[in-house]
Amino acid sequence: MPQISIRGAEMPESPIRKLAPLAYAAEQRGIKVYRLNIGQPDLPSPQCGLEALKHIDLKVLEYSPSQGFLSLRKKLAEYYAKYSINLTPEDIIVTNGGSEAVLFAFMSCLNPGDEIIVPEPAYANYMAFAISAGAVIKPITSSIEDGFALPDIDKFEDLITERTRAILICNPNNPTGYLYTRREMEQIRHLVQKYDLYLFSDEVYREFIYTGSPYISACHLPDIDQNVILIDSVSKRYSECGIRIGTLCTKNKKVLQTVLKFCQARLSPPLIGQIVAEASIDAPIEYQREMYDEYVERRKCLVDGLNRIPGVYSPIPMGAFYTVAKLPVEDAEEFCAWCLSDFEYEGATVMMAPASGFYSDPSKGRDEVRLAYVLNKDDLKRALEILGHALEAYNKMKSEK
Amino acid sequence: MPQISIRGAEMPESPIRKLAPLAYAAEQRGIKVYRLNIGQPDLPSPQCGLEALKHIDLKVLEYSPSQGFLSLRKKLAEYYAKYSINLTPEDIIVTNGGSEAVLFAFMSCLNPGDEIIVPEPAYANYMAFAISAGAVIKPITSSIEDGFALPDIDKFEDLITERTRAILICNPNNPTGYLYTRREMEQIRHLVQKYDLYLFSDEVYREFIYTGSPYISACHLPDIDQNVILIDSVSKRYSECGIRIGTLCTKNKKVLQTVLKFCQARLSPPLIGQIVAEASIDAPIEYQREMYDEYVERRKCLVDGLNRIPGVYSPIPMGAFYTVAKLPVEDAEEFCAWCLSDFEYEGATVMMAPASGFYSDPSKGRDEVRLAYVLNKDDLKRALEILGHALEAYNKMKSEK
Repeated sequence: MPQISIRGAEMPESPIRKLAPLAYAAEQRGIKVYRLNIGQPDLPSPQCGLEALKHIDLKVLEYSPSQGFLSLRKKLAEYYAKYSINLTPEDIIVTNGGSEAVLFAFMSCLNPGDEIIVPEPAYANYMAFAISAGAVIKPITSSIEDGFALPDIDKFEDLITERTRAILICNPNNPTGYLYTRREMEQIRHLVQKYDLYLFSDEVYREFIYTGSPYISACHLPDIDQNVILIDSVSKRYSECGIRIGTLCTKNKKVLQTVLKFCQARLSPPLIGQIVAEASIDAPIEYQREMYDEYVERRKCLVDGLNRIPGVYSPIPMGAFYTVAKLPVEDAEEFCAWCLSDFEYEGATVMMAPASGFYSDPSKGRDEVRLAYVLNKDDLKRALEILGHALEAYNKMKSEK
Repeated sequence: MPQISIRGAEMPESPIRKLAPLAYAAEQRGIKVYRLNIGQPDLPSPQCGLEALKHIDLKVLEYSPSQGFLSLRKKLAEYYAKYSINLTPEDIIVTNGGSEAVLFAFMSCLNPGDEIIVPEPAYANYMAFAISAGAVIKPITSSIEDGFALPDIDKFEDLITERTRAILICNPNNPTGYLYTRREMEQIRHLVQKYDLYLFSDEVYREFIYTGSPYISACHLPDIDQNVILIDSVSKRYSECGIRIGTLCTKNKKVLQTVLKFCQARLSPPLIGQIVAEASIDAPIEYQREMYDEYVERRKCLVDGLNRIPGVYSPIPMGAFYTVAKLPVEDAEEFCAWCLSDFEYEGATVMMAPASGFYSDPSKGRDEVRLAYVLNKDDLKRALEILGHALEAYNKMKSEK
């Protein structure tokens, strides 16, 4: 039997999805599983998007342009303009979700062995895409004690080598909910300019900023527009994770031309998803406002609730819809698995993402979990109650061993 | 400005899409362009698929499982059984079109530097995916004079080195329409077994076989089920290229587990496309039969018509909906571009794919083009008439220079 590739062996299992078989088994046993593990909002997609879907009147579901429909890219440019992000339709390429935008950015900009500096904990799939492209992620670790603020800029410079080609940020941050300050963004800009690095900036959560602090896009930073590659997606802002529509945007024409070659190879982004996404951009302002208000309350509900459980600590996330919390356990991955395989409280349990999967060194974040506040408040409260009981039972069991 | 990657620079421009700006410009000048360049059928998607689309009643367009919906994979298994391909739903992973299946097969099975033997002319994007994965395509050239039959098996063995890890075939073949014989498939099986290679088999055109010859799937070959990776797609058989639903199928569990990790990284295949594809599998037998009958006639129309043009030669393709034809020109790429930029006949012109892009050595196939018979017969006849006039005018111009 031929061997699988080294790259394939190195690919991490998704920390979000690896417990899925246990959750499935629990559900098969009739247990209700509250899923806090994945950023799948329960909020409805906008009515105008769903209507557009029902009214598709195509006879042939044919290929679309490799870079995406021009009509969609025009609307996206108008959307970005509302955030003072100055992009023309020609600067925008439509991708199979933000995921493909990250992969194609890496493939187009990085040679095997090139290094990307990434503040961590970080979205786990960046590592998977880096492995796919043969690039090396150099983590710079932020800590829960500092609320996951950007580590000191000196620490970045310490990591820069001849092979450093890029900095990757996610802002607002998944998994921590951290929002980079103007000062931090200016420091990043300085580094990017000084070392002529790419700045990959994943900003799919820009709608979800709860503190009144300004949103500083990488695209707002002066004098580095040839270095910035914006990664974006409609998944979260329109609760349309399933349609797989993202974008890669840059003013760098050489990068755009190169990314387009990768896009041509895979022919087209999804046709129907593009139609739905284009219609969804017209969602009324009330749609975003209601969604926003809902997340504000859920965030408060989750973070307050977590901090009331003995031994649990969550910083207050400024954006996105996640928080990374510290639990009074030694091995959160074991605990998360146990919740699904060995625990229930009144017929229900919780599913969380062990945070170690968001660090490049899995010995880090071992007592942390990522929780997504994508359930309604009643479900969140119930999940918190279950989590409290689970921790108690688990630690009782541990102390008795 | 930071440099793009070496891989990005090496990525070929799609031979199918690189002339698109010229075609667009021609259309802007009011010229009708008959597109024979791309395998985009004009035939309708099945009514049951289109109906399923209109009746989607989801409120949240959410992520689907990384490996695709189980219900779709069950239906696909039943579909494969009709072709005596024995696959369970667990052997099937749903991908973003056949394209992603090829990429993930390469990523999972091949290390950078590993070699894949590919009979050429070959689907151009295999090269793009090989570059993405750092693998090296070792072409074995078939010739139009032999009707693009598989070169002698000795020639394969000559290419095998320590780095050879796979053979990749497309059967029925894009771009040549060639269908591998039982004897050829048995020879490939022998090589795969002898050298313990992967056999990547792209069989997306299995519905389109016109000669009564048997379809021998790689999955029919005995004793190599751990080596075979089937690449498939619903794009062509249901005229649903835009929904981006393909599959990667194998009995090799280790490969499946590895491919799944790449799938988890990109989260999900398209949600809506899966729903449409699943419904389309129920298309009545008349749907396939009408489509088939139509292609039989188009094939005859195109191939007869080509061979009637002085200096043009096309073998008779046995399957798929392409043919590679030899034209009486020195540089088919120049001629194809000229047809779009400098020629019209009664307000219309033709768009073809220069065949050099389907060879790894672009000096090969320089007088060949790939034509897709995806237009109705009247349009095909008109396109052939235009092509005849174009060749005459082009060669007149050349001789006058």
